[in-house]
Amino acid sequence: MTVGNTILDCIVQTGKLYGISVGPGDPELITLKGLGILQRVPVVAFPAGVKDKPGMAQLIVKQWLQPHQLQLALTFPYVQDTEILAQAWQMAASQVWHYLQLGQDVAFVSEGDVSFYSTFSYLAQTLQHLRPGVDVEAVPGVCSPLAAAAALGVPLTSRDQRLVVLPALYTVGELEAVLDWADVVVLLKVSSVYEQVWQVLQGRGLLERSWVVERATLPDMLVYVGLSDRPTLKLPYFSLLIVKVNNN
Amino acid sequence: MTVGNTILDCIVQTGKLYGISVGPGDPELITLKGLGILQRVPVVAFPAGVKDKPGMAQLIVKQWLQPHQLQLALTFPYVQDTEILAQAWQMAASQVWHYLQLGQDVAFVSEGDVSFYSTFSYLAQTLQHLRPGVDVEAVPGVCSPLAAAAALGVPLTSRDQRLVVLPALYTVGELEAVLDWADVVVLLKVSSVYEQVWQVLQGRGLLERSWVVERATLPDMLVYVGLSDRPTLKLPYFSLLIVKVNNN
Repeated sequence: MTVGNTILDCIVQTGKLYGISVGPGDPELITLKGLGILQRVPVVAFPAGVKDKPGMAQLIVKQWLQPHQLQLALTFPYVQDTEILAQAWQMAASQVWHYLQLGQDVAFVSEGDVSFYSTFSYLAQTLQHLRPGVDVEAVPGVCSPLAAAAALGVPLTSRDQRLVVLPALYTVGELEAVLDWADVVVLLKVSSVYEQVWQVLQGRGLLERSWVVERATLPDMLVYVGLSDRPTLKLPYFSLLIVKVNNN
Repeated sequence: MTVGNTILDCIVQTGKLYGISVGPGDPELITLKGLGILQRVPVVAFPAGVKDKPGMAQLIVKQWLQPHQLQLALTFPYVQDTEILAQAWQMAASQVWHYLQLGQDVAFVSEGDVSFYSTFSYLAQTLQHLRPGVDVEAVPGVCSPLAAAAALGVPLTSRDQRLVVLPALYTVGELEAVLDWADVVVLLKVSSVYEQVWQVLQGRGLLERSWVVERATLPDMLVYVGLSDRPTLKLPYFSLLIVKVNNN
């Protein structure tokens, strides 16, 4: 029996980790490729929700999953402490590796696109560090700025427009410099800095060339077209702001 | 009979124009939403190919179409002359309107994402100018930079990285200024300026932090990982270059 098990161990091929981009909210915005992989893997992983609530990506793919698929919630704490983060990534990578070494493929689903400011990057890099040579594939998808532009009915960019995307951590000075230069600016996760941003846009006469989109493509999506009368806005975490500096 | 026709004319509801993002090449990168619309409209429009060859978007969706669907090639000349372009957009919008006024929905398919440097913007804007109130909907999809990053197995952006996307028309001076400031830079349609860009990247020691992707996600995709030994490259039109200026 022992010999038999050893032979069995040798012939089990390690599974593959897929990063599946599921888009910003509407479940129909997954790609055919992403859905095909999602529906054939035995293990579907996702970032755990906060306070026992399901995570965003888990909710998005819920309708595509089968009862026999194992659902694996991985904890990625919302903190800045790099040591706590590194420990969480190690733990998540180990949990994924547990299934891969059994020869099972794992699909990690992530809202938006897995190459665009995504938790998947940390999981994949930690796993590749832990187990060099492990097989990882990213499946691209719809990122939130493009979903927001589609929902607004305006192109994000056209012709020779220069695009800048800024994640949440930026200063007013940096924003001023970007507005001097770019044609289109996207501010991601704008909720915590909205009031300062509004002041800058007002000073430049750009409020009527600005849009805010909350929860793009979800049933409770809200859009603000022009911001002149909105110096304050109570926004959820997944909100973004688009400014068309030049309409050339 | 005349009276009957008039009544019939009045009750025909005008069709809707959809802009369907079909992704950069792999037909499986269309979204479920995009495919659902594509397969139920009577008319599928796309940019005509050059020299009697089929267009890129037409090739991408070919396998999803049914024989009863009308295929409508629209001409968008590759010129800078704004008058010739405006005439072409008018003509294309009129061709689309012909079907919309008959109550038929039209899906215009476009490679990449329809809000990201896409011909769809010009078609939609011209149609809306020609026929105010016409119903238009953009369906987002996979843009080439995110497909390229997934193919390379590297995240495009993570943490607080500032992203800049530059379309083809930029100067060396502008590129230098961007590299001073951004963390990640994407140069679209880089073929015509590759040699100048290489010189700039060499001067800054960034060649080994740069990637070129030709025809992302197509069967003949080529990737160049690190550019130190490639001062010249013969690249097709759909090539892009990613530079990771800072890996923070």
